[in-house]
Amino acid sequence: MNKEPVRIILSEDELPRQWYDIRSDMVNKPAPYLNPATKEPLTFEDLTAIFGEEVVRQELSFDKPYVDIPEEVMDIYKMYRATPVIRAKRLEKKLGTPAHIYFKHEGENASNSHKLNSLVPQAYYAKKQGLKGIVTETAAGNVGTATSVASAFFDLECKICMVRVSYEQKAFRREVMKLFGADVISSPSTFTEIGKKINAEFPNTPGSLGCAISEAAEIATTQDGYAYVLGSMFSAVLMHQSIIGLETKKALEKYDIKPDIIIGCASGGSNFCGLASPFIGEKIKGINDYRIIAVEPEACPSLTRGKYAYDFCDTGMICPLAKMYTLGSQFVPSPIHAGGLRYHGMSPIVSQLYEDKLIEAVAISQTSAFDAAALFAKTEGIVPAPESSHAIKVAIDEALKCKETGEEKNILFVLSGTGYFDMPAYQKYNEHRIEDYKVSDEEIERLAKSIPTVE
Amino acid sequence: MNKEPVRIILSEDELPRQWYDIRSDMVNKPAPYLNPATKEPLTFEDLTAIFGEEVVRQELSFDKPYVDIPEEVMDIYKMYRATPVIRAKRLEKKLGTPAHIYFKHEGENASNSHKLNSLVPQAYYAKKQGLKGIVTETAAGNVGTATSVASAFFDLECKICMVRVSYEQKAFRREVMKLFGADVISSPSTFTEIGKKINAEFPNTPGSLGCAISEAAEIATTQDGYAYVLGSMFSAVLMHQSIIGLETKKALEKYDIKPDIIIGCASGGSNFCGLASPFIGEKIKGINDYRIIAVEPEACPSLTRGKYAYDFCDTGMICPLAKMYTLGSQFVPSPIHAGGLRYHGMSPIVSQLYEDKLIEAVAISQTSAFDAAALFAKTEGIVPAPESSHAIKVAIDEALKCKETGEEKNILFVLSGTGYFDMPAYQKYNEHRIEDYKVSDEEIERLAKSIPTVE
Repeated sequence: MNKEPVRIILSEDELPRQWYDIRSDMVNKPAPYLNPATKEPLTFEDLTAIFGEEVVRQELSFDKPYVDIPEEVMDIYKMYRATPVIRAKRLEKKLGTPAHIYFKHEGENASNSHKLNSLVPQAYYAKKQGLKGIVTETAAGNVGTATSVASAFFDLECKICMVRVSYEQKAFRREVMKLFGADVISSPSTFTEIGKKINAEFPNTPGSLGCAISEAAEIATTQDGYAYVLGSMFSAVLMHQSIIGLETKKALEKYDIKPDIIIGCASGGSNFCGLASPFIGEKIKGINDYRIIAVEPEACPSLTRGKYAYDFCDTGMICPLAKMYTLGSQFVPSPIHAGGLRYHGMSPIVSQLYEDKLIEAVAISQTSAFDAAALFAKTEGIVPAPESSHAIKVAIDEALKCKETGEEKNILFVLSGTGYFDMPAYQKYNEHRIEDYKVSDEEIERLAKSIPTVE
Repeated sequence: MNKEPVRIILSEDELPRQWYDIRSDMVNKPAPYLNPATKEPLTFEDLTAIFGEEVVRQELSFDKPYVDIPEEVMDIYKMYRATPVIRAKRLEKKLGTPAHIYFKHEGENASNSHKLNSLVPQAYYAKKQGLKGIVTETAAGNVGTATSVASAFFDLECKICMVRVSYEQKAFRREVMKLFGADVISSPSTFTEIGKKINAEFPNTPGSLGCAISEAAEIATTQDGYAYVLGSMFSAVLMHQSIIGLETKKALEKYDIKPDIIIGCASGGSNFCGLASPFIGEKIKGINDYRIIAVEPEACPSLTRGKYAYDFCDTGMICPLAKMYTLGSQFVPSPIHAGGLRYHGMSPIVSQLYEDKLIEAVAISQTSAFDAAALFAKTEGIVPAPESSHAIKVAIDEALKCKETGEEKNILFVLSGTGYFDMPAYQKYNEHRIEDYKVSDEEIERLAKSIPTVE
């Protein structure tokens, strides 16, 4: 066995060639999406009215634990993968912990986050289906950027419905998407029926994610040759993200390293489940045991304080019902800077894993996440995305526990992205203006009442 | 021999352990810096009044072709190196060229550019000397960011004199430096004598690089325990950057690839010479032949239209005289977006190599650089720094020549950094508002008159 390097990077011929679908190994499968009107499970026909065919096929079938990654997708993966597993030696030293801290770095691609891992296959399948374009919605800009990059790779048209306030304030994100050829639409727009309606009613609205979703869905259903692509929630997306965990596992095994604790930030759950699913699979099958922790913000605590029930995926209550841990579709999160962690629900897979006690969850404050981010930046030389900082915070906490107990645990987390587009948030941090938001018990209770009763 | 992967990344144990000093192999050595008053070569004592001792030692001696990289520097290099050599297959395909295009990607670290490669050793040597801090000037922000990151690694204080207009307009860059703990000073400041003087005379000045240099130099000479660190020009800096070329050469040799054409953008010349020097060394010794091209903007054509003469390094004419290709120290470059390519002179090493016809130089327009950048982004999925786009443009031109002739040449360039902090420039590009600037013959002639006569 060679000496363990600081960065473990699989070679091209060591790259995994298949994704892992954890549903095949789950004893209790995630519940299907339901039609909000009929309360019946959504069919292939229902879903392909909006989404691409192959993605829907993957969403609806989960008999195979491993799914081949198409050659054309592998060709793109090879341009930025394998991503490194990095030992955070300087962070360990700073903390004075006997623990070994490892992180999988998913921020070194043009989209600056892990989102590209799923948008590449989604774009590929759309192209293969003969579609002419893909459409999605974006607020923080992560999904939008990944979508624009993936569409450029496959010569697809690309429409991004960007929440108006983000369109105006996140100019850098907007311009990256445009550089990659995307048509970035300030939502509500004047192109869609729903956009026109909302603009007429609320001319000065800053827009909302709910509205942007509705606009993107309208484009996907009414314009010829467009498919809606997704950044999270869908089981197919979580499966594509398993590339993170498969690479990590293989990289660590090369040096005989077994993680004791596995950590990821979670909103829909795509980067968290992407890292954790191959390890959870082993846990289910009794091959190995791991502590696996999903981290969410106190400002949006769907796992730790939400209800496990069927709920609407959108504020407008027009999208399908998903069985998930949810705060209620009417939840309006505080304006925290981890824009990717503001969703009211958790993906059906991660929700079921939590219900089955295969994973833990913890909610942390915004200030503690930024403190962890600053310490990480100064020691490891990487500016983390505010979302990823939630995972860093818990990794640090666990490493400090090891300092107390003297345990030499292996702590692994996923750095889902970098924070170079989040400097306004870091400016606030530098100026000591980051605030904490905690949802009150009254609010949790009030919102729970909006969750429909589905038998 | 294994199949050539898309990304060639040396493993940790393959990393070069020594820098290469091309001066040792140059037949005509670069001319020494002169004291502007006495016109005598600067001594160790002169230079250490401002700069750190070990860096000055390296600057003044060049008897050894290889210099050991300290273990502490290697420990930091291992956190982000080796950087990948990437085959730009999708770009080749788009161009329809039989050429193979390779690029060395130096943008995947917290400073987003190659600058960190030299700031790490400079910070390390300052720490070892027992200094308490490092100081530098910055306009575009690349050097400042790398300095702040390196100072965090070695627990040094860090002061960055940032040209006032950049301080105000490049808020993201400023905040990254602050996050890493730097004291970012809007220049002219109220802390230094020169700053006070300029503020009194010109209260609303946007500042200038010349003034920021003077302020940083004043801090280095008057404050206890501070050394001035540099992003380019110095031969020691160019030597540190040889890590780029040494890694590239070793990576390509693993797959039996010999580059025919080697390309880098050049202002001071640190990334260009960093990549090219190990290859130029072979050229000097007759081991191998290569075409080596330095690319500069038409708006600042020091090599292609400047004069090879001793000139002041700064507008204020207080810094040392360097023998270099220069447009004249009074040259005020047009406001091009490649902020790192606006210096009036070229480093003494690169100037001498050009004088000796070991390298070629070409000047290109700003619009052609941005067009190349956009094509590169869409095909290779990386947003390049506007500086690096100059190298991309010439790589594309050479690849298109191969298309005409049918030659299967290997074209290699260095991607010195990414453009995520340059989105305002890309916004202009997206809106078709990028302009070209060419220096007139009259201007070149007028400026040449400011170059002093030194025998």
